[in-house]
Amino acid sequence: MTKPISTKEKLLQAGRELFWTRGYSNVSVRDITGAAGVDAALVSRYFGGKQGLFEATLADLPPWDVLASDREGLLAKAVESFAQPYDPQTDLVNPFMLLLANVIDPVMGDKIRAFVQQGLAAPLAEKLGSAQAQERAAMLLAVLFGVALIRKNFQIQGLADKSPEALRAQITALARAALEFEP
Amino acid sequence: MTKPISTKEKLLQAGRELFWTRGYSNVSVRDITGAAGVDAALVSRYFGGKQGLFEATLADLPPWDVLASDREGLLAKAVESFAQPYDPQTDLVNPFMLLLANVIDPVMGDKIRAFVQQGLAAPLAEKLGSAQAQERAAMLLAVLFGVALIRKNFQIQGLADKSPEALRAQITALARAALEFEP
Repeated sequence: MTKPISTKEKLLQAGRELFWTRGYSNVSVRDITGAAGVDAALVSRYFGGKQGLFEATLADLPPWDVLASDREGLLAKAVESFAQPYDPQTDLVNPFMLLLANVIDPVMGDKIRAFVQQGLAAPLAEKLGSAQAQERAAMLLAVLFGVALIRKNFQIQGLADKSPEALRAQITALARAALEFEP
Repeated sequence: MTKPISTKEKLLQAGRELFWTRGYSNVSVRDITGAAGVDAALVSRYFGGKQGLFEATLADLPPWDVLASDREGLLAKAVESFAQPYDPQTDLVNPFMLLLANVIDPVMGDKIRAFVQQGLAAPLAEKLGSAQAQERAAMLLAVLFGVALIRKNFQIQGLADKSPEALRAQITALARAALEFEP
């Protein structure tokens, strides 16, 4: 027998499915408790409210493994983490979608910007530790996020239709240009 | 005296301000007529409904000038169109934001994908006319959209804080890698 899912976990799951795909302000507490099939008062009890539940879905994110790699392995790890096979029908609820749908949110935008600046861009620049480290880190994120956007969200031919191997070569070419940038 | 704005133009303006920043499904006809200060029935009269108004805001978009440049000038034009000064407080309503907020929309996503594939990616690939034209066109869009996303939406240091001149050098390095890609 599988273990029954707790109410708290049901709320987190519904929170991810709705907040991460539609954006914080476009989802009501009632949408979430309806999807979770639990009483509307329980978001307050478990998370202190809508914002607390959103923040709990953020806190649950696994760390980006690129930040744990050594400097030499960074390029390959970064490419690998964005070249995974992807099914637009089933893989809608993912950390990139969370960032995308909420960076344009009027309430959560600042929190998401701080999350990416402090949690991804700054540690990446520190790891690079080179001249232009901040510029290169920002450019690497631009390349990786841009490829994810064009491939997964816009589904443009020439990226959306490539094998993981072909995609790896494409992302590597762009990521290398970011990491070797000289003004 | 300035010419009074017509009801139709008021609705288009409110449509751009709301649809382009919050996404089609997150905006009601009432939101729009409220912002425009006109009767709720007028969206139907002038545009045949909510979808018609959305499509009218799309049809009004100026063509991307990169597609009118010759092949030699393409890189410089593409860089130029994404290196413009930008104020996140006042420049929120722009074509990139329209694409971003609506490509993740459950109703309008397919229309936006078709718009970018047929209106931007395919003509760009045709203009490149080289081996790997489709791949390079998709990669160029990934670079340009990724830079806009990291600079304007995520506001990451190393891109968001650069002068137009510094930014031009950064985008050129990435765009060149896209346009010179060999598998």
